[in-house]
This record gives sequence, structure tokens and C-alpha cells, in this order.
Amino acid sequence: MSSLDAVLDRIDHNLDESLERLFALLRIPSISTDPAYRSQCRDAAALVAKDLGTIGFDVRVRETAGHPVVIGKGGDGSGPRVLFYGHYDVQPVDPLDLWHTPPFEPRIATLPDGRRAIVARGACDDKGQAMTFIEACRAFRQVTGKLPLPMTIMIEGEEECGSKHLFGFVRDNAAEFRLDLALVCDTGMWNPHTPMITTGLRGLVYEEIRMRCADRDLHSGLFGGAAQNPIRVLAKTLGAIHDDSGRITIPGFYDDVRELPSAVRAELAGLGLTPENFLEPVGLKIPAGEKDRSLFEQISTRPTCDVNGIIGGYTGEGAKTVIASEASAKVSFRVVVDQEPEKVRDAFRAFVRARVPADCSVDFVSHSATPAILLSPDSPALTRARDALAAEWGKKPIVAGIGGSVPIVGDFKDVLGMDALMVGFGLDDDRVHSPNEKYDLTSFHKGTRSWARILAALAEQ
Amino acid sequence: MSSLDAVLDRIDHNLDESLERLFALLRIPSISTDPAYRSQCRDAAALVAKDLGTIGFDVRVRETAGHPVVIGKGGDGSGPRVLFYGHYDVQPVDPLDLWHTPPFEPRIATLPDGRRAIVARGACDDKGQAMTFIEACRAFRQVTGKLPLPMTIMIEGEEECGSKHLFGFVRDNAAEFRLDLALVCDTGMWNPHTPMITTGLRGLVYEEIRMRCADRDLHSGLFGGAAQNPIRVLAKTLGAIHDDSGRITIPGFYDDVRELPSAVRAELAGLGLTPENFLEPVGLKIPAGEKDRSLFEQISTRPTCDVNGIIGGYTGEGAKTVIASEASAKVSFRVVVDQEPEKVRDAFRAFVRARVPADCSVDFVSHSATPAILLSPDSPALTRARDALAAEWGKKPIVAGIGGSVPIVGDFKDVLGMDALMVGFGLDDDRVHSPNEKYDLTSFHKGTRSWARILAALAEQ
Repeated sequence: MSSLDAVLDRIDHNLDESLERLFALLRIPSISTDPAYRSQCRDAAALVAKDLGTIGFDVRVRETAGHPVVIGKGGDGSGPRVLFYGHYDVQPVDPLDLWHTPPFEPRIATLPDGRRAIVARGACDDKGQAMTFIEACRAFRQVTGKLPLPMTIMIEGEEECGSKHLFGFVRDNAAEFRLDLALVCDTGMWNPHTPMITTGLRGLVYEEIRMRCADRDLHSGLFGGAAQNPIRVLAKTLGAIHDDSGRITIPGFYDDVRELPSAVRAELAGLGLTPENFLEPVGLKIPAGEKDRSLFEQISTRPTCDVNGIIGGYTGEGAKTVIASEASAKVSFRVVVDQEPEKVRDAFRAFVRARVPADCSVDFVSHSATPAILLSPDSPALTRARDALAAEWGKKPIVAGIGGSVPIVGDFKDVLGMDALMVGFGLDDDRVHSPNEKYDLTSFHKGTRSWARILAALAEQ
Repeated sequence: MSSLDAVLDRIDHNLDESLERLFALLRIPSISTDPAYRSQCRDAAALVAKDLGTIGFDVRVRETAGHPVVIGKGGDGSGPRVLFYGHYDVQPVDPLDLWHTPPFEPRIATLPDGRRAIVARGACDDKGQAMTFIEACRAFRQVTGKLPLPMTIMIEGEEECGSKHLFGFVRDNAAEFRLDLALVCDTGMWNPHTPMITTGLRGLVYEEIRMRCADRDLHSGLFGGAAQNPIRVLAKTLGAIHDDSGRITIPGFYDDVRELPSAVRAELAGLGLTPENFLEPVGLKIPAGEKDRSLFEQISTRPTCDVNGIIGGYTGEGAKTVIASEASAKVSFRVVVDQEPEKVRDAFRAFVRARVPADCSVDFVSHSATPAILLSPDSPALTRARDALAAEWGKKPIVAGIGGSVPIVGDFKDVLGMDALMVGFGLDDDRVHSPNEKYDLTSFHKGTRSWARILAALAEQ
């Protein structure tokens, strides 16, 4: 039996224990965006650190101005030095009443089509995904007595709030983290049977707008008609972002967006992504993006804008005849290669300011401004990973860019000059960021096996 | 000393005790729109009933499907039979953190300009106002041994949620309440020195919209660009209600709106309402209504639309990259004489439905659909009340329509065929429906005296 086969066997054998370790991590409500969960984030970091310590990593929980970063170092040999990146923080769980079971009490559920899945907040994003890599390392350590490559593991706690303190941390310690290749497990499969290597990620510009008009809430009976209403201003502004063809109207927004070569467009079209297989599972039918673009372009290679939240005035039971003094919204842009996040942000702010009546004022808070990234198709690591995944899944992986963003990956390129190989095992129906988030048991198990194969392939001389 | 002078003296003498009785009522958080305060609404009704019982009224707390109505009957003689209407319920208190002192712990505050005021939720609307009438009755009873007119007092508990059950109650008991004249104390003064008789009220059409797209919340990284976003649809729809000139764009909306005779427009212009004296006190400067209409028209004789509340997606701390599955808004229209509320409501719903993409659905909830009303300028009661107010304030009252609505007053006209004389002592800076609501001590004291004078004038043969 080859050493890899032994490692794969060990992964199969370890599965129940691997799940126990994942469940322990899932039980910690490490919601990074909400200050109320600060100590739980530390608990999650401590658990990850302890776990890595048991498989040969030299681990430190490193402080930042926000939630800490877990750094583990281990392995040796002449293979490429890799930096594995994942995150232990999770999204908020609201609306809580839509969860069928409590979000931090992980369980195995059987889906209507027979698949078995781990259900919990973070089951996929990113605790389950990160653990596929860690459990692959564990099996190597158990079988061979050592880690397969010289590696650094970086598990951070602020991905869901834009990794804001990790940027400074990476910059301040650039020499330490400038290795040969970044590995990331925070992306998805093409479908439940087809693996995917993600070679591009859209960037994220995330803005919060606060619109203020009168200096107090007003009675709409007394002031209605005369007083400027911040919800009306906000609605008019947000409603103007897209035109009727789904195109974003912010001046200059598309200036730096490159057209895809027609060969690439044809290849994307050939992937067979359709409204039926992509939108119908979530109750939709009609792509809402630019009408002259394919569905795949809309979600991967074209920039987009979404209002992620809005609130203002009376939102309780029944009716209240109030004109609110302020209203706010959270607005995010997925930006593509060559769009500068700061330029997009400034153009958006100018667009909003131009629509604010003299009687109102607006403030902005930036929650993220990260660029898109793209992995070269000539990367040798890409070729090795492609073969490794094909061996595990019996099917060639899809190699393409996707619409989401992993904020720090842009900095790995910009600051550290390091490419990222992104392989993940999430599925479209994982309800990531939604109630009842899940991660298929197959994703967890074969994901762990996939990383074992990739690590072995990268280690080959 | 005439009997009226003795009554006025008694009111002066009673002031401290009158305030004690008002404070007791203000301490009850009778928030009618929130089901959590159901029992407190009953407590307020019981206290009002007990109070009326001490001054010669035969009182019943009458049940409805919602909060109960207090009905007191008393007095005799040959004067007009009057129905006094007020309400014991109050608006919600959010945002609570903007209150300087707890909303249900009434206190006397001294304003920066030296005026003294009662501060509490309901201090003005409508507990303070209703008590001016009740305390005037008390003084009559104490001085003359009886009430000055044959009268019915109706104090309801659902005005702040559109009086929804009072309509049926009035209809079902029309014969009982069909008297000669309705008296209402739920409106305002022209300014702190000038009383006002309100002869018209705009009606209220209040709708709640719920927009739904996907059947779950989605990750904007995976679905952004392709998935319809209900906040975007809602913003675009609400943003389209007004054009750039402040005019409402809903088809047919202005069809039944009469133009004012030019003499009336000139008279309104002569009242001297300006952005400086009306809007600046609340931090605004520029009338936001139809650009070709005067400020006074905008707030009184022209129909308007306001979004009173909106919510959707993630509204907590920080950022969440979610595309919400639903979003909702509360939208209200102030309608004027000859506009049919149902027609406005239907036109609005059609306007919204026309903007809902095929992938979304919309539901509506009606919170109110009441017409505007107008008192004839020839009413003899109007002449008597005008003289009575002039005697109390040393200044002729302004007689005009206003922008707000008292939902049931339309029904007094439609169902009972009864005109309403609306006299109130609220001021523009009373922060009605807002944090730190107040009622000037002068409004309470001279308001009580005003009602004594009006009742005496109506009782004269």
C-alpha cells in the first residue's frame, strides 16, 4: 500500500472522530460581526489551536485589534512551502425562528434525496471546510509521522466581517507569511459530483449608508408633505442603482471591466449553468442581472451590486404615522479584476451624495474594499491539484472563477506576491449565511481525502 | 361672579389636582399598536372610567374585538347634545434611548425659553388633550352641581392603530351616538399664543407591503447578480412614488382632488406659515412636497405619501453579505376631501404590483382607509367656539383644515351625520409620536379653561 493509500484509509477510519472534532468547533457561536460574541470567538480560536497542537504544529494564538488569528507551523522537506488559510468565525444566525434546530447544536440530517449532511451555522462556511484540510494533515501525521509539506496554517476570526484586522497582521508580518503558495478551502464544488478549482474571486466593496433629515421623528399628519423623508430619499437612491436592463448606472462603474475573450465566454456557456438548475432550487427562475449577459457571467465575471440590509422608521406590529429622522442601508458590490475597490467606493459615494436633498445629510461606513483576484492558468500547482481531484472524484474538476470573495486572498497576491489555489467542497444548497446551513457528509469526507491527494501531489518531486 | 367665571376660577384652583389625575393616566403604558400592552390598555380604560364616574357620568367600559371604549353619559337641559371624543391609547415609544427620562414617568420640565411642560408619552396625544375637556366638566360639576349640556363622552383605545374596532362599534350603536355635534380634542394650536379651530382633516390610507423573492436568504457571493433582491425591488418601487417635483406618480391619484378657490389660497398664504417658522424648529428648511404648492397647502389641503417604515435583510452591527428573501415597508397616504380611500388604496396596490418582477410576490395589509372631512363654515357651533376661544386667548382663533387625521371623525359624519368641532391645544414642538413628547402647562391649563368657555357658549339659549 502506498503512503497516500494508507493516508486515505486512515481518513476513512477516522471519520467518526473527525466529525466529533468538527462538532465541538460548531458548538461554539463564534459570530464575529457581533461584539456580544467576542469571548466565544476566542474560545473557537483556542479550540483550533489546541487541535493543531495535537498533530505536530507549533501553534500560537496571535492577537490583533480584533479577534485573534491562529497560526500553526509544521512540516519540512523540499516541497513547496504552503500557507493554508481558513476562518473559525461564522455569520450571524438571524432570523433564528427559521432554523429547524438550534444553529449551534450540530446534528447529522438526512436530506429528502437521501444525502446525509451536517447541519449547523458554520457547518460549511468555514468550519467544516477548514477541518477537511486539518483532518487530512492529521491522517498524514498518523500514518507517516510527519506533515507532508512545510506548511503554515492561518485560521482567522474575522472573515465574515471583511478580515479587517488580518490585513494589517499580514502586512506587518509579510516576511513570515511570504511562502510559495496559498491554499484556501472556502469555495464550492461545481455540483455534488463534480469538483471545482476556483481560479478567480470577485472582490467586495461593502458600504453602510446613514441618511438623516429632520433632527427628530415627526408625525406624518402634521409634517407629511412638507418634511423630507429619509426613507424616501434612500429608496429613490437605491432604486436608481440599477436600470431596467439590470445594468448598474453609477457613472464610470464599468470603465475598468474587461470583456471576456469570446472563447472563454463560449467555454462558460458550455458549463451548462441554467436558471433551472441554479435558480429554481432557491425558488427563483429569472436571472436578475444584466440582461445581455449569461447567467454564469452574472454570478462570476461581471460586477454586481446588492442591498444587503435596510432599516428606517417604524417596523413593529401595526401602524405608526411617523416620518423617521434617519434611515440606513448596507450596500455591497462584487467587483471584478481591474476594478479598483476604492474607485468603486468613491463613485458610489458620489452617486449617493448627488441624490441627497439639501435638507438631508449622509454618512458612510466602509466595511470592506477588497479587489478581485485571478490565478494564472499556467500554475503548476493547478495542474497537480486538477489531477488529484480527478482521481478522487472520478471526474475532471471544473476550473473557473466565481462570484464570492475571500477578502484576504487579494492581499496574499498584492502584499505577499503569492498565488492561491482555492479548492472547496461547498454546494449550492448549503444555505451558507442562511438558516439551516449544512455541509454534505460526502463533502466533508471526500473533501478530506481530496486534500490528502492534493498535498501528496504537491509534495512529489 | 357669573357661573362661568366661577367655573374658570375653580379650574385655576384645581390645577395641581388636575395634573395629578393626568399623571396617573400618563403612568399607564397604554400602547395600543403592540399586543404586549393589552392589559395596560385595559388599565387606562378603567382609570378613565373611574374618573368620569366621580363627576356625574354614568360610565360603562364597553368591549370591542380590540381594546375597550369608555362611554360616559351625563348632563341634561335644552342645549345641543354633544359627543366628546378622545383616546386613552398612545404611540409606541421607540427609539427608547432618545428619551431623556422614561416615557411613562411624567414630569414637569422647564423648556429653554422658560415655558413649562408636561413630558411623557401621551402628554399631548391624547391623554393631556382629553383631560382638558374632562377637567372642564369637573369644574362645572363642582361649581354648578351638574354638567352644562347633555353629553356623551367616548374615550377609545385604538386611535393610534386606526380605530379599527371603533368603526364597527359606532355603526352597531349608531342610534345611541347620533347626537347633535361631536367635540374632539386631538388637534393643535396655530402657535403658542393663537388658538385654532380645525375644520378639516385629511384622511389616512395606511398600507403594509411585504415583498418576497427567493424562498430563503442567499449568499450574495454565490447568487449576487443572478438572484432578484426584494430590497432592490422595494426601493425601486417606493422610489418611483414621487417624481422630482414632489408630485405623486400613481396613475389617477390626483383625479378627485379639488383645486382650492383662489380666495382660499390667498387666505392660507396670509397665515404666514413659512419654512423658517414651521420646518426650522425640526432641523429642516426646504418643503419637500409638490414644488408648485405653498407650504400650507402641502401639509393641509394636498394629498401626500410617506414611507413610515422599512426593513429587510441584515440590519445588525457590521456587515453580512446576504440577499434577503423578503423585505417590507409601511406606506401611508394623507388623502383630501373627495378622494376615496379605497380608490387610493387600489391604485397604490396596482402601482406596486406593476413593478414586481415575475420572480417576486407581494402581499398587502391594510392598516387604515379613512376619508378626509370638512366642517361647514356656516356651523353655528363654529361661531360660538370662535368667540369663546377669542375670549380666553385674547386673540381670534385661526380656522382652517390640517393635515393629520382622527380616523373616527370621518365616520361621525358618514355614519352618524354629525359634524365635528375640533379644538385642541397641541403645539408644533410637542414631539407627538416622537421621543420626549410634551404638552405645555399653558396648553393644559388654558385648554381646560377654553373648553369651559366653549361649553358655556354652546349651552346658552
